[in-house]
Parts: sequence; C-alpha cells; structure tokens
Amino acid sequence: MRSIWLRRMAARMALVVVLLVGVVLPARASDPELTTDFFVPEGTNKSTITGEYFTSTILRNGTGLASPAKYAIKRVNSDAFTALTGLGISTALLEYLPGGINTLHTHPRGTEMLTVVTGELNVGLVDSGNKLYTNVLQKGDIFVFPKGLVHYQINLSNETVYAYAAFSSSNPGTISLPGNIFASGIEDVVLETAFKVDNSIIDQLQAALAV
Amino acid sequence: MRSIWLRRMAARMALVVVLLVGVVLPARASDPELTTDFFVPEGTNKSTITGEYFTSTILRNGTGLASPAKYAIKRVNSDAFTALTGLGISTALLEYLPGGINTLHTHPRGTEMLTVVTGELNVGLVDSGNKLYTNVLQKGDIFVFPKGLVHYQINLSNETVYAYAAFSSSNPGTISLPGNIFASGIEDVVLETAFKVDNSIIDQLQAALAV
Amino acid sequence: MRSIWLRRMAARMALVVVLLVGVVLPARASDPELTTDFFVPEGTNKSTITGEYFTSTILRNGTGLASPAKYAIKRVNSDAFTALTGLGISTALLEYLPGGINTLHTHPRGTEMLTVVTGELNVGLVDSGNKLYTNVLQKGDIFVFPKGLVHYQINLSNETVYAYAAFSSSNPGTISLPGNIFASGIEDVVLETAFKVDNSIIDQLQAALAV
Amino acid sequence: MRSIWLRRMAARMALVVVLLVGVVLPARASDPELTTDFFVPEGTNKSTITGEYFTSTILRNGTGLASPAKYAIKRVNSDAFTALTGLGISTALLEYLPGGINTLHTHPRGTEMLTVVTGELNVGLVDSGNKLYTNVLQKGDIFVFPKGLVHYQINLSNETVYAYAAFSSSNPGTISLPGNIFASGIEDVVLETAFKVDNSIIDQLQAALAV
Amino acid sequence: MRSIWLRRMAARMALVVVLLVGVVLPARASDPELTTDFFVPEGTNKSTITGEYFTSTILRNGTGLASPAKYAIKRVNSDAFTALTGLGISTALLEYLPGGINTLHTHPRGTEMLTVVTGELNVGLVDSGNKLYTNVLQKGDIFVFPKGLVHYQINLSNETVYAYAAFSSSNPGTISLPGNIFASGIEDVVLETAFKVDNSIIDQLQAALAV
Amino acid sequence: MRSIWLRRMAARMALVVVLLVGVVLPARASDPELTTDFFVPEGTNKSTITGEYFTSTILRNGTGLASPAKYAIKRVNSDAFTALTGLGISTALLEYLPGGINTLHTHPRGTEMLTVVTGELNVGLVDSGNKLYTNVLQKGDIFVFPKGLVHYQINLSNETVYAYAAFSSSNPGTISLPGNIFASGIEDVVLETAFKVDNSIIDQLQAALAV
Repeated sequence: MRSIWLRRMAARMALVVVLLVGVVLPARASDPELTTDFFVPEGTNKSTITGEYFTSTILRNGTGLASPAKYAIKRVNSDAFTALTGLGISTALLEYLPGGINTLHTHPRGTEMLTVVTGELNVGLVDSGNKLYTNVLQKGDIFVFPKGLVHYQINLSNETVYAYAAFSSSNPGTISLPGNIFASGIEDVVLETAFKVDNSIIDQLQAALAV
Repeated sequence: MRSIWLRRMAARMALVVVLLVGVVLPARASDPELTTDFFVPEGTNKSTITGEYFTSTILRNGTGLASPAKYAIKRVNSDAFTALTGLGISTALLEYLPGGINTLHTHPRGTEMLTVVTGELNVGLVDSGNKLYTNVLQKGDIFVFPKGLVHYQINLSNETVYAYAAFSSSNPGTISLPGNIFASGIEDVVLETAFKVDNSIIDQLQAALAV
Repeated sequence: MRSIWLRRMAARMALVVVLLVGVVLPARASDPELTTDFFVPEGTNKSTITGEYFTSTILRNGTGLASPAKYAIKRVNSDAFTALTGLGISTALLEYLPGGINTLHTHPRGTEMLTVVTGELNVGLVDSGNKLYTNVLQKGDIFVFPKGLVHYQINLSNETVYAYAAFSSSNPGTISLPGNIFASGIEDVVLETAFKVDNSIIDQLQAALAV
Repeated sequence: MRSIWLRRMAARMALVVVLLVGVVLPARASDPELTTDFFVPEGTNKSTITGEYFTSTILRNGTGLASPAKYAIKRVNSDAFTALTGLGISTALLEYLPGGINTLHTHPRGTEMLTVVTGELNVGLVDSGNKLYTNVLQKGDIFVFPKGLVHYQINLSNETVYAYAAFSSSNPGTISLPGNIFASGIEDVVLETAFKVDNSIIDQLQAALAV
Repeated sequence: MRSIWLRRMAARMALVVVLLVGVVLPARASDPELTTDFFVPEGTNKSTITGEYFTSTILRNGTGLASPAKYAIKRVNSDAFTALTGLGISTALLEYLPGGINTLHTHPRGTEMLTVVTGELNVGLVDSGNKLYTNVLQKGDIFVFPKGLVHYQINLSNETVYAYAAFSSSNPGTISLPGNIFASGIEDVVLETAFKVDNSIIDQLQAALAV
Repeated sequence: MRSIWLRRMAARMALVVVLLVGVVLPARASDPELTTDFFVPEGTNKSTITGEYFTSTILRNGTGLASPAKYAIKRVNSDAFTALTGLGISTALLEYLPGGINTLHTHPRGTEMLTVVTGELNVGLVDSGNKLYTNVLQKGDIFVFPKGLVHYQINLSNETVYAYAAFSSSNPGTISLPGNIFASGIEDVVLETAFKVDNSIIDQLQAALAV
C-alpha cells in the first residue's frame, strides 16, 4: 500500500513543507490548549525526541549585551524553544548596565513576572487610569506587570543588574513604545495632534528614535 | 424558618452590599465563561428581569461631544451595561469633528472592530515590529485592530465622522498612550532615557499633556 | 541550499494548497488564542500585508436586499474577512423593510450585540426557561442576545430599519430555526411527536418553509 | 482579635448569606478554570469534606418517569451535584418508553455525547446549513451532538431505552425548542412571519404546547 | 483554471498528506474552540459526511477484557472517534472482574466523571494535600475525579462491575502511576531518594511492574 | 445618602468578611480571565494600592532550607502574592544541596519551566506512554515540564544548586507522588494490587514516607 514512490514523495514533501514554512510563514501559528502530552512539530517523529527537546541552552552565553548598549534581553519563547508551544509560558534573561533601561513597553498577549537575580532595579507600571506604580527591587524581589499594561525597568544603581522574566504566554509579544510610536512612520499630523506639541518636537523625537 | 428578622436583615444587607461594592470595589470582577443563560447581579431577583435589562439606551443622546473638544467616545461596556457581563463583547460610539483624533492607544484585553457610519476616517495600526498599516475608511468600511496593538483614528476630512466600535471583551480597557506616558508622573530620567531626548523636550510633552 | 527546483516546487505547492483548501475543506479551521500579532494565511508573505488586509469594504454596497424579500443580512465573519481569524469578533449589517423579520434563530458559538442605526425595531429573546424578553428599540439602542439563546428581530414600523450586529466569535454560526426544523428533512413522526400536532399541520409548515 | 462578638456575628452572617443566596440568586455563578484542587462552597469547611462530596446518588432511583409521560430525563449538573462546579462536565440519565421523544432542543453551553445503555434509539442532528444527520443506535453506541446544534432522540422500537448523556459543561443548559418557540408568549405576528403560515396553524401549535 | 493536472495533483497530494500524517505525526493536533459547527478532517469533503460520522460503535463489543486480566478499559477519545475533535468531551467503558483494579493514575488534561452501570465499586481520590476521599459506589452512582488528581477504582465485590467514564477533554491522557514511576527507566538513585527506601525495594517494584 | 450608620456598618462588615473568609474558605476562588487591569481583593480600596502591591519580597530570605533537609522550595503563588490572581503565572525558588531531590510530582493545573541559576541539576520527565526524558542542566539552562506530567529534579553534583521555576497558572498545585500514594491512607489491598507487590513492601514504603 505504501509504495516506494509514496515514501519518497512523502520525504520530499516533508522537506518542501519545512522550507515552505520557513519562507512564507514568518508569523507563527496559534497557542491552543493541547490534546497531547506536548507539541511535536510536523515532520518530527515523536520517537526520536529526547530530553534535549525539552531543554533550551540559549541562556548559557548570557544576553549577548554588546557595547555601547547598556541593556540587552535574550528571549526564550516558542520561536526559540519549540517545546514551549501550546504550554502558555516563556521566559527571558535581562541585563542592565548602570543607566540601562528596558524602555516603556507592553506585552499584548501576556503578563510578565520579573525576578531580580543580582543588583537593584527601578521598575514602573502604569494602569489604564494613568496611575503610576513604582518600586526599587532588591535581589530576589518579584514584580508582576499585568497583561497589556505599560511598564519599564531602569538601572539607576552603579552595578550591573540581571533579572529573569517569565510570561503567561509562549509568545507574549512586545510593543516597544518609543519606537512603535516615533519610528513607525506615523504621519506628523497624527503625532502632533496626539501629543499636542508642534512639529519641531515630533521631529526631534523621530530623529532620536530613528533606527 | 425564614423569619421576619432574617428577611429584614437580608434586605438591609443587600443594600449595604450594594453600597459597599460602590465604595470599596472600583475594580470589577471577572469575565469567565458563564454557566447560566446570562449574568444576574447579586441582589437581583431573576424573575423581575425584563427586556429592559438586555437593552442599553446610553447612545440615544449621542457621544456628548462638547466644544472645544473635537472628539468624543461613549463607551457601552459591562460597567455601563450590566447584561454584557460574562458575554465577551461590548461597544462604543465615536464622534470625530474635522481634526478630531482618537489618540494613540491600546486595548489590553480585547480586539477592536471599527465600522464607519458616516464620513471618511483615517486609521492607523502599528504591529510589534513597528510596521505601520494605514487606510482611509469610507462609510460602511470596517477595520480590525488586533488585541493589544497600538492604533489611532483621525478625521482629516471636512465633515463630522461617526463610527461604531465593537470589542471582543465586555471590558477591554483603554491605554491612552500620550497621557499614560507623559501625564502619569513617570520620572524624567526614565522618559529621557526611553525617548533619547533631553529634559526640555520631555518637559514640553508633559506640559502639553497635563490634565 | 534552496535550489531553483525547490523554489519552483514550493510555489507550485502553494498554489495547489490554496486550491486544495478551496476544494476539500468547506469547513474552516479553529479560532484559538493567537500567539502572533494577527493571523497570516498560509501562503501569504507577511511583508506584503498592508492596511487593506485589516479592512473590509463588504458593506459599502449595503445588504444587497432584493425584492420581494423584506429582510437581508450581510455577514462580515472570518470567512469573508480573513483578518478576523483568531480575534474572537465579527459583524453584520441588517436591513429590515416594514414587515421584515430576522427569523427565530440561535448562534451556537457567540453572543450577539445589536445596535439600531435607523428606525424602530421590535426584538425578542427567550431564555432556557421559556421566558420571553422583548423590547422596541429606537435609533442608537443596543440589545444583547446571550450565546445560544433563541431570538428574533422584526420591523413592525412603516420605515426601513438598519442595524449592526457584533458577535463574540469570528464565526458564530446561525441556526435559522424554522428552516432548521421544518426544511431539513426531519421525519414526520419526530416532528409530530415533538410539536404534538397531527401530520396535516407538519405538512403545512414543511410546505411553507421548503426551499 | 477575633472577639466572641465577631465570631457570633460571623456565624450569623454565614447563615444570612446562605439564605440570601437561596432567595435572590436563582441564577448560578460562573464556571471558570479552577485554581484549587476542586470547588468548595462558601460556608463549607474544607476539612469536613469526605468522599460523599464527590458522589452523587441522584440516579439510584432512575429517571422518575411517571405515566402518562413516555420520556424522562434526570439531570446531574452542578446545580444538583456541587462538586462538578468549575470542572466542565456533567451528566444525565434518559429513559424512553416506546414512542418517547427527547424533543428537538439545543444546549447553549455544551456538547452532548450520548451512550445507549439498553435498547435501540433513533437520533437526529441538524447543522447550521439545515443538513440532517440521523442514525439508529444500538446498545453501547455513542453519538455526539456538537455544541449549540439542534438535535433529538426518539424511541421508535417496542422496548424501553436507557441512555447516559455527558456534557462538556457543568451546566450546559437546554433550550427545548417546541416550548421555547410556541409556549413562551412570542407574538403571533412574529410566529406567522417566521414560519410563513397563517394564524390558525400558530394557534394550534400554541394550544398543543401550552403548559 | 482548475486543470485536470491540478485536480489529479490535488487528489494525489490528499492521499500523500493522509499517509504522511499517519507516518510522522503520532501525536495529534490541538483541541481549540471550534469556529465551525464541527471538525472535518483535512481531505474529507464535508458533503459526504452522514450520521455515521457522529457515531462510534467501538463499545458494541465491550471492553475486550481477556483472561488473565481482571480489568479492561476501552477508550473512545478523539483518536478513536474523530468527530469529538474540538468538542472537549470523550468517554470510556470500564470492566472490573472481582479483584480488578483501575490502578492509581491521573488525567493531565481533564476531569473524569464515573458512572457505575452494574455492581458495586470502591473508588479513591487523593488531593494535593495527601488527603484521601473514598466511597463504595452502587449502580447508578456517580463519582467525580477533578483534573490532575490521583485516583483509582477497585472491585472488592464478588460480581463483575461495569462503569462509564466521561472526560472534560476530547483527549484527557492517562498517567498510569505504577508503570510511569517504576517501568519508565528512572534511575535507581532517584527512586531510592524519592521513596526513601533501599535498592532492594526499588528492584522488587521494578520487577513487578516490568512490561 | 450614605449615612454615618451605613459607613460604619460597611467598615464593620468589611472586617467581618475578611475574618469570615479567613475562617471558612481554606480553598481559594477561581483564576478567570480578568476584566479589569488587575485583581483587587474585596475590602481593598483601589486608590490605596501602590507599587508594593505588585511586589513580592518573599524570596529575599531564600528558601528557608533547614538541616537535615537537602532540598527546599519557596512558592510564590497567588496565595502568597495576591497580585498574581487571575494573571495565570506564578514562581518558586528551589534549593538543592548535594543529594537533594525535588521528588517525583505533577502539577495538576500548570506547566513548569525551570531555569538553573547556579550549579548542575539532573532532571527527568515521563510522558503518558511511560517514556523517560532526562538531561543534566547547566547554569542558565531551561527545562520545560508540560502540564500534568510526572517529573523530578535531583542534585547529583557536589555543589548547591539554585533554580527558579515559573508556572503557567497563578496556583498550579503540586501532587508529591510518594506521599500522595503511600502516606495518604490508601488501603493496602489497593496498593498491593496497583504495585503488584506483597504487603511487606507496601508496609516499608508506608513507613518510609509516613509524616
């Protein structure tokens, strides 16, 4: 029934599908409740899976922070660590040199829980009523940034700070607000009206945040 | 079994509970999957519910737009229309005079689908990769703003525009970004570092957006 | 690595997949929580997406109501507007001439929120306890029909009525009860027993509702 | 800190709350994902819970079918069996004498899976395209009625039939269509227009289905 | 547009896809909320679906219990009964000879509701606080085992017992603990440390439970 | 309208409610999708909330590991850190001295993602097919234990190991298997039949794991 031709065709198609996905599907699929023990990618024989599949060593080399940047993040979501698919959780390692900031941002699809590993970190959260909540976190402290709310972390100390973030989604997304607003090509008239300032201010913001 | 004392006590408590909720619970409860036909508030006898309960007449008087404002929104979410509780949907009426803007914002808990009722409306959406998607909508056109992404609408025409928004949550929330960022008391050092501009620019933005 | 043969094969397969889907998959896929900013169809290069993708102009031409019908609905769900996929919301435009009815029906997968744009509309909702809730809606009024409950709208006025419906699903489905019951070929014995009437009544209902 | 007065007050309030709930809250609360091992009702000390709490003996006495009825159902949902709360499952025992029908109905909040225990049962399901799916089930056979779709079971044999139903909700609800449509007081003009028959037919249906 | 070549190619690919799925995808896909009336497998033309599709006759031949086993289970989940896909429910028939046990196990993705059809059955449930809940069920009794908790059933009577289980997932999974722990190859040092016993005990358990 | 009597009564009731909840509700409420920015406990005035509310300092003092134990875990779930309520995420700090084990266990309501902070850690995971997946994690490595599956961690090195766990639930629960099975009072006949060993082995396991 399963002729040689079909097997060969199947193998060839598996390869094509992999390439096809890589080429035309930059946006990944969905994160539904699983009905199997864990997700297995199409084209993977489950019997070949070992403990390596459930392991990510991405963070062994740290965040990859490179001068002159004062801040770096290394994300470990389902794009980077396939086994997370459908499990509703992901993580990241964050490194902040003195003066380093994880700029104002939101996560459209998840809550963030941040744990400080070393150092002292200033954090801020703004709710939908424009109320600001801040704190200065010490080693071991945890701060929760509820889904979709604007937040930031900044290192106002003299020491490097490391922190782990965990997210309630395998792929929470990040909207980095300064760039999202001022480096995305939104027309000046929109920005001037939104921020109630004249064009010279908008120009300076756009110039500062240009990629 | 149910003595007069208990009935009187129950009635008094129902009143107290209502006041208590009004006083100490500004944040509402959750929006879970219902296990009844519809939500009935505590203290309401289901048998007294009529068609009025499922009706909101909030929009009969329009948006309440008052000069000198050029834009107004009247929200109909579960805070304003109790029957929506647990049903995962809400709406709003929007009115834009020429030059009016529904400023850059996100909805942390829902997708928005906007339908233009009259006029011509410019809309913009920015994804997490800072890519801008815009369009000029005509009467009857629909635009969808996926959950958590930054977006805006602006009336660049000479006519008043009306639109309906529908949301995929009974209470999607709104993060109005200019005010959330510049009128929430975030420290200047954070804003200067985030937006990479000096304090004079930040001061002008804060002044422009002060409540 | 990616030879011309593979690229050509990939392009050909993309075409075949599209046709294949059109031919053998009349029922669409699922509506899970997204793990990307928005849904991108297989075979679409995300970089080619513009604001048009988030826009539906289906309603520019109205409902398409054609005499002698007194009622028409134009649905804008994820079948008609792909960008809605996975976002849990959809809409429709409804037009009712005098005497026009949106017959008794249910939505198996979503709540409906109806907003009257022009005119006066009679609506009714029946809960699982066979209790009827009715109202006469004016322009701007909103009525919510909770998920799965039987409901209808009828124009008992002398003017045309327009209304927008929003649904808490990208594809809520509609069970049109008269036809579902009497034009689906259910055996007479079932209908007679269910409705407790004799065959002549069932025959008349079947004849009236035959397609 | 916990004075006698407070303890006495607490005990009294617990009693009042129980009565209050019984009196003014005919509609039950929601069925969310639990964050505890199982649901414990307010006012119940978890330490007093035993195996009895997870047991329902409701079906020991059968369905309670009483002549002249030819059909009866005994439901075991979270109203009748508290431990099911939040667990997304419930059941029912059904008994059909020859000629007995579980009339045309839908479940607004759940899928039904029916298993025949004894006898032979005719079942029917109608999808949203008015397509009918039927079968004649034997002992041990299972039929699935997807969420929100119209369905029925009828005993066209000469023997009594027993069946178990399981539902994908702790409280799926039931819309019994003949009564929901013709015994709920919907105005004649609506029914005549919906079913496209004259008033005499509607009158006969209403009379046949009157409670 | 749809040439013969394409149709033929499409048909051939459908076949290949089916085989491909059978060969390299032992783990099934996900169980999300549907956006269609029901699930239709890829490669199936919906118009060919009849009532058979919604029917499983798997249980007509009982559990298949074969001596010397004293216990057997026949599962009817979405692997065995495709129509259950996405509907969040499944079932099983269980048969226990005297002394037969459904060993200590958990369901990682669903709650179980067990109904005794004939005989008397001892059941036990352990919560996360190591508290045991037991009961002796009679014909018609129902016991609920909340999601993820350890439980068992054992026939301590002299008669055969039959029971139906319903699950709140189309594919709840089963972790059979004795084998999961002692027949999975976990290193002795782990088991000795976990169970605080010496190697001879672990060896005896491993030998007893070896497949 | 809000008399002094009512305010005083309200304050008194808030106090009583807090005590009442503490006394009779050992099991916490549910974790549904929020419809507010974040959860605010009943009796808390939202305006008094500051950054402290979103902060947990529980881990400042480490795990509290005390000799002779070789392993300790400090959990930070919604019981310990109220702000996590409804956000679907929680964490824990784990400390393993040489020879220390986080014994065989499951989480009934969540996936675990473990990140090694210092040292080298052996981990194991068993799927529902009794297949074992192991690895030896280095500093920075991440291992994911999918929801409901049996797993363990053991320190087979000569150094202390610290790790952070993140969970996809605000309260995932933990079933510690050795104690759940052998220290919960399950009858010997059940254990003997389940593990297929005689009573002397069961006795030794029960003695070893007795609290």
